[in-house]
Amino acid sequence: MTWSAAQYVKFEGERTRPVWDLLARVPLAEARRAADIGCGPGNSTEVLRARFPDAAITGIDSSPGMIAAARKRLPDVPFAVAGIEDWPETGFDVVLANAVIQWIPDHEALLPFLIGKLAPGGALAVQTPDNLDEPSHRLMREVAAAGPWAAKLADAAKARAARRGADWYFRRLRQHAARVDIWRTTYFHPLAGAGAVVEWVKGTGLRPFLDPLDADEREAYLARYQAAIAEAYPAEPDGTVLLPFPRLFFVAIR
Amino acid sequence: MTWSAAQYVKFEGERTRPVWDLLARVPLAEARRAADIGCGPGNSTEVLRARFPDAAITGIDSSPGMIAAARKRLPDVPFAVAGIEDWPETGFDVVLANAVIQWIPDHEALLPFLIGKLAPGGALAVQTPDNLDEPSHRLMREVAAAGPWAAKLADAAKARAARRGADWYFRRLRQHAARVDIWRTTYFHPLAGAGAVVEWVKGTGLRPFLDPLDADEREAYLARYQAAIAEAYPAEPDGTVLLPFPRLFFVAIR
Repeated sequence: MTWSAAQYVKFEGERTRPVWDLLARVPLAEARRAADIGCGPGNSTEVLRARFPDAAITGIDSSPGMIAAARKRLPDVPFAVAGIEDWPETGFDVVLANAVIQWIPDHEALLPFLIGKLAPGGALAVQTPDNLDEPSHRLMREVAAAGPWAAKLADAAKARAARRGADWYFRRLRQHAARVDIWRTTYFHPLAGAGAVVEWVKGTGLRPFLDPLDADEREAYLARYQAAIAEAYPAEPDGTVLLPFPRLFFVAIR
Repeated sequence: MTWSAAQYVKFEGERTRPVWDLLARVPLAEARRAADIGCGPGNSTEVLRARFPDAAITGIDSSPGMIAAARKRLPDVPFAVAGIEDWPETGFDVVLANAVIQWIPDHEALLPFLIGKLAPGGALAVQTPDNLDEPSHRLMREVAAAGPWAAKLADAAKARAARRGADWYFRRLRQHAARVDIWRTTYFHPLAGAGAVVEWVKGTGLRPFLDPLDADEREAYLARYQAAIAEAYPAEPDGTVLLPFPRLFFVAIR
């Protein structure tokens, strides 16, 4: 899957707020070593540094484009192109995983793996979009299944991990963590019409549906998708559309 | 309705966290005058003071017991027994209404009334439980309707304002506010079994259902209600029950 740092940062304010909300709940006054895994263009790393200014911070992401953007933003942070599963480092006081575990399939195995990255007393802080059942994401799948591109997009929906409830994460984390704090927030984002909703998801959830298509197909897919979005998210008289965006958060202490 | 400050503060940590989350989103560096309306036993007022240490703070509540508890907690804050609708003061930089508007029926009229309490540029910060559709509250109504106390409790459910979605508040607030920030968070509280869930709601939502009953009825109602809760919230092997508690938040700038 190709990632565009420029597309991703279009809604940076909205995308960075959950990182602040998440890190506010890490019950540590300071950290010596902190890692941002799946750091994207470095916006979350910047919040991590603001929250723990004395920590030695490192960031990884599997996308070279994202790492290039992150290095430009924070030249003094040692960023590396790496996948989370292949990443050997351990002993962190804080591991931040912001908007990334939804791209990793096996959460049953992932959670103890991530907690294993922590020093004793360290905190794993995770935020993940929980929007697969929202119209924005349901319509991606419906438009994919109903068009001439159905065969090409048969696997697109599989790019995202299956949805699990907060109770599942709570139960699984408790087996490996001394303390678990878990919550789910739906942010209601006022956006400038259906086109803005499409722009938003283009940076993330829509990528697996657009990448396999050629230019003409892509245009046709986007036109159908935007029409469906306009129907599902009715606009206010001034054109504003309210996009509900649910996100699941947890902080687990080793 | 009678309120017990002692019962309310039993889960004070869990009940105060939303106030921190709410006030963290007020985009003001300082405030001259701030009010806590429906202040309860003063736990929210304490957070308001911590967030705006230089503000002149006042607090009102319609319950004399709650105001007595608040005065004991914060002797230097001028608290008053007063209903929100009768409260004449205006010109505040911050008005905090934590866990109170659910007891006020007409939100259509309430929202402009509250925004009218603000100085220009001031912030109205509201948090309200959004749990009427949760099993915890559905079962209150079901047990009420199915028992020998049905006639006595016919009006109990009416103590709470009807549920409205975030989009409704957004639309209504926009007509009176320069800026609106709105979100909904479900906190997942690990509690020590079904009995603890009942203890929790005893301090708030269950009051209109218990107040009309005599002692024997109350005991019988609580036994049935707790049995229903135990079924709706299955316990972990160690007895822990996860209580999902949704709350709606908004900050509106005049």
